[in-house]
Amino acid sequence: MRPTLTVFESSPDRGRGLARDMRVRWALEETAVPYDVRLVSFDAMKQAAHLARNPFGQIPAYEEGDLVLFESGAIVLHIAQHHPGLLPEDADARARAIVWMFAALNTVETPIVEREAATYAERGKAWQAEHLAMLDARVRVRLQALARHLGDSAWLDGAFSAADVLMVLVLRRLEGSGLLEDFPTLQAYIARGQARPAYRRAFEAQRAAFEATRGG
Amino acid sequence: MRPTLTVFESSPDRGRGLARDMRVRWALEETAVPYDVRLVSFDAMKQAAHLARNPFGQIPAYEEGDLVLFESGAIVLHIAQHHPGLLPEDADARARAIVWMFAALNTVETPIVEREAATYAERGKAWQAEHLAMLDARVRVRLQALARHLGDSAWLDGAFSAADVLMVLVLRRLEGSGLLEDFPTLQAYIARGQARPAYRRAFEAQRAAFEATRGG
Repeated sequence: MRPTLTVFESSPDRGRGLARDMRVRWALEETAVPYDVRLVSFDAMKQAAHLARNPFGQIPAYEEGDLVLFESGAIVLHIAQHHPGLLPEDADARARAIVWMFAALNTVETPIVEREAATYAERGKAWQAEHLAMLDARVRVRLQALARHLGDSAWLDGAFSAADVLMVLVLRRLEGSGLLEDFPTLQAYIARGQARPAYRRAFEAQRAAFEATRGG
Repeated sequence: MRPTLTVFESSPDRGRGLARDMRVRWALEETAVPYDVRLVSFDAMKQAAHLARNPFGQIPAYEEGDLVLFESGAIVLHIAQHHPGLLPEDADARARAIVWMFAALNTVETPIVEREAATYAERGKAWQAEHLAMLDARVRVRLQALARHLGDSAWLDGAFSAADVLMVLVLRRLEGSGLLEDFPTLQAYIARGQARPAYRRAFEAQRAAFEATRGG
């Protein structure tokens, strides 16, 4: 059954592949699952039709027949459990890959999103710089641990997995922050992810959606 | 195989059941899986033996023979996938329960932890109150959406599931903040969780661990 992915009509990242639908698009490309796209405006995201898909009024949502899912992590896990290519067959290796999916979203992404929120929500506040320095330090602790774990490995735990889809995109949120530059291990890891043909296809698809709807 | 759970030797929450091992303990009690406990001190958490269990030096870690897992969400999911009682049998209902696990940790917990961090990391800053008010507003948006979704339902999506284990404990982090008092729906939901015999057993176990190690 061909799934439908609901995404921003006009993504606030302006097609840079940082919106959370990119995670799902990449997972679908890795597993060669064709999909349809529904665009929602910011207004429509807070209205009943979309709240029925996601009670928090966010994107992405994912529909497959009568099944309606939200939370990009859960959607990527669903895709990975139903199509080969994103999780190891071995039960223990699979459990560890799922650990790294949660680590990407709960341990690494959390301070990164907090920092990101501070860059715009606190714009103009006299204390923004002081707060950002505190948040930068918190992000660095996570990046250090992650870089130490990765070492010379290509991916988080053995073969490329759904965890790498999430982690590469979580780390990309730091582009422009200056924080990644101290971690060549992580920069090389991100570049490995971006070099995958499935990543490229997903990236082009989300950029095309943005270009088509910006009216330009 | 009897699992071993690694937890704080002396939990900073002083036995209030707010440390993340409580999630795993509750899941193990719901599924009637007996387990052993290993205590780690704050110092030991940053040393090699524990970093081999969790590269980020956090608790909990979970060992089952040669399998070593971290991330409380991933551990609870692992337990739920291998023992009946925490996930529906029906495939679609199961996928939706997993959505709510991610929603608890990624959409609801994130602003709550951010607020919590601000209460201690920004103590004494002239701007703490202003920042806390911004964070309170962000938490309220999530609580409103969650309360609207719950409505008259006992649990997040049909029968009690692993998602409720996570969500009830995530919401408990707001105790004392004054934010829950505007949401009787959520207070009743938390109370329903806390009334479960498995919750009580897990709570008593973590409290006993704290009492035994505080030296009193």
